[in-house]
Amino acid sequence: MSVTSATEFSLINQFFTDLTPPRDDVFLGTGDDCALLNPSPNQMIAVSIDTLIEGVHFFADVNPIHLGHKALAVNLSDLAAMGATPAWFTLALSLPKFDQAWLAEFSNGLGLLAKQHNIQLVGGDTTRGPLTISIQVHGHVAAEKSLLRSAAKVGDWICVTGTLGDAAAALQLKLGTLQADTLTEADMAFLIDRLEKPTPRNTIGLALAGEAHAAIDISDGLLADLQHILAASDVGGCLDLTKLPFSSAMQKLPVHTAQNLALTGGDDYELCFTAAAETALMLSEQFPGMIQPIGEIIEQTGLFYQNTTGEKTAFESIKAGYDHFA
Amino acid sequence: MSVTSATEFSLINQFFTDLTPPRDDVFLGTGDDCALLNPSPNQMIAVSIDTLIEGVHFFADVNPIHLGHKALAVNLSDLAAMGATPAWFTLALSLPKFDQAWLAEFSNGLGLLAKQHNIQLVGGDTTRGPLTISIQVHGHVAAEKSLLRSAAKVGDWICVTGTLGDAAAALQLKLGTLQADTLTEADMAFLIDRLEKPTPRNTIGLALAGEAHAAIDISDGLLADLQHILAASDVGGCLDLTKLPFSSAMQKLPVHTAQNLALTGGDDYELCFTAAAETALMLSEQFPGMIQPIGEIIEQTGLFYQNTTGEKTAFESIKAGYDHFA
Repeated sequence: MSVTSATEFSLINQFFTDLTPPRDDVFLGTGDDCALLNPSPNQMIAVSIDTLIEGVHFFADVNPIHLGHKALAVNLSDLAAMGATPAWFTLALSLPKFDQAWLAEFSNGLGLLAKQHNIQLVGGDTTRGPLTISIQVHGHVAAEKSLLRSAAKVGDWICVTGTLGDAAAALQLKLGTLQADTLTEADMAFLIDRLEKPTPRNTIGLALAGEAHAAIDISDGLLADLQHILAASDVGGCLDLTKLPFSSAMQKLPVHTAQNLALTGGDDYELCFTAAAETALMLSEQFPGMIQPIGEIIEQTGLFYQNTTGEKTAFESIKAGYDHFA
Repeated sequence: MSVTSATEFSLINQFFTDLTPPRDDVFLGTGDDCALLNPSPNQMIAVSIDTLIEGVHFFADVNPIHLGHKALAVNLSDLAAMGATPAWFTLALSLPKFDQAWLAEFSNGLGLLAKQHNIQLVGGDTTRGPLTISIQVHGHVAAEKSLLRSAAKVGDWICVTGTLGDAAAALQLKLGTLQADTLTEADMAFLIDRLEKPTPRNTIGLALAGEAHAAIDISDGLLADLQHILAASDVGGCLDLTKLPFSSAMQKLPVHTAQNLALTGGDDYELCFTAAAETALMLSEQFPGMIQPIGEIIEQTGLFYQNTTGEKTAFESIKAGYDHFA
C-alpha cells in the first residue's frame, strides 16, 4: 500500500526513457518529482489523456509491440485532431507482474512511434495492478490555428481521411460476428493491422491547422464523432453515403455491412473535419487519395443522408459508439 | 472494445468540471480532443503523473471523499516538492460500474482540494475497468527557482515538514500489525486521517522555491526518498534520529517503533529538503513548528545516523519502501 518505489522508478528508466527522442525544450525529464518543460512562445499547450484497459480496449493476447504503438497512437490522434505539434508525453502503467520480455516489446512499439513523431517521454508511474495504460500527450498549437469542434460553418464540406470501418471489421472478425468468406488472408491481416496499429494522422492534422474549421478524430464511429462537431457548432450535417471511403478489403463486403461498420464502428483513428470547399479541394490535392469529402454542413440541426433520389433522410437511431456502462 | 463514448464524456462533465475553479489561463477546458492551456511567460511547466489502484494503494472500503482528496493530494505534493504553483490537472478514471453516489462523493473530495489550490480540471478519460485513478498535474515554476533532487550541497541542513510516520502507523493499525494499547480513539482517528487525507505542502513548497536547494516529497519513507536526493546530488547524509518530528499520537508509541515507521513507512507526503543553515532557520521562523532540521548533508556518500556518543553509523539495510514487484 505505497505509491512508488525505487524498482518502479528504474523500470521506467530502463525500458522507456532512452527509446524516445531527446528534445531541446525538455529542461528536466524523468527521474525527479516533476518534469520541467519549456513551452514555446505564443503557442498554447494542447493536452489529452487516454486510457487502454485489458479486456475493455484490447484483447489479453494482443502483441505487446502493437499495444505500445496503439497506446501512443490514440493519443497522438487527439493532437492531430487539434492541429497541434506533438512534444511530450507521460505514461502511467499498471502491470499484473514484472515481465521483462513483455516490457521490452511494449516499449519498443511505443518508442518507434514516439521517434516518428519526435515526442519525448518526460514522466511516468509504474504500479502493480490490472494491465492498464494511461498516456497523456502534450503538443503545441497557436490558439488561432487550433481545430475546435465548435468551428464548423454552414456550407463547409465534411471530409474524412483514409478509409473507414477497417478497425470495426477486424474486431468483428476476431469476435466471429462477421462473415469473412469473401476476404483473403491478406485482407484479414490488413484489417487486423488497422485495429491493432492505427496510424495517427498528425501530418494531415498539421496541414489542417489554420485552414480547416472543425475537426475530431474518429474513435467511436463516424456518426457519434461527427455529432460532437454538429452539437458543439450548433449546425447539422448531410452525408452522401456513396462517398464513404473504403479499403479494398472492405469493398469485398456487402455494401450495407461496410457502411454500417464505417458509420458506427470505432477505433479507426482517422480524422473527420469540416472546411470551405476550396480549402477541402486544396487539401485533397496536397494529400492525394487521403482526403474524401463525404457531405456538407447544413443549417438544419440533426444528421442526415441523401438517398438516391436526392432526398434528405434523418439517421433513424444513431448508435453512439460502444458504451462502457450500458 | 472501444475508447470513449458520449456517456463517459458527460460523466466527466456532470461530476467534475464544475467542481474545480475556472482559470484565466485555460483557453479551452474539457470537451474537445485536447484542452488548450496558456503557459506563463518565462516559466517552465512542471508535470507529474501518479496512479492509485484499489487493493494496491487504498482499501476497497475507503471513504470516496477521502479517496478523491488523496488522488489529487499525492500529485499536488509532487508540485510542492518542485517549488511549482499548481495550475491544471487531468483525470483518467476507471470504474467497475457506474455508481452515482460514489462518483458524487469522490468528485466532492477532489473538487474541495482543487479549489483550495486553484487548480482546474482540464481533461479526462472515464472507462469501465478495475478502480484506478491516474491524475496528472501541471504547475508553473521558473527554472532557476525549481527544487531539483540533484541540488543538495555539502553542509546543507536536511529538513522535513510536519510530522513523520503517522500514515505508516495508520496502515499498520488497519492491518492489525501495530499494538495500539497506548492510543486513544482520537489518536487513531488522527492517524487514519493522515493516511487517507494527506495535506500536500504546497504553501511551504512555494516558499522553498529559489531558497532551498534540493527537495522531494516523502511518499516511500524518509530513508528511501532522502536517498534519491543523495544519489542525484552525489553526496551523503547524516541524521540525528532524536530530531525526527512526531505527532502526539506517535509520541505514545515506543520510540524505536516510531522511528522505524518514520524512516521506512510511506504515504506521509511531507517534504524533505536541504538548505543552507541560515535559510533553514529563516524558513523555520516563517512556518513555526512546521519545519524540523533532522541532519546534515556530508561529503562521504551513504546515509548515516549519529548515535548518542556522536559517532556516525551507517544504516545497515535500508528498506527501500514497498516494492510492488517484490
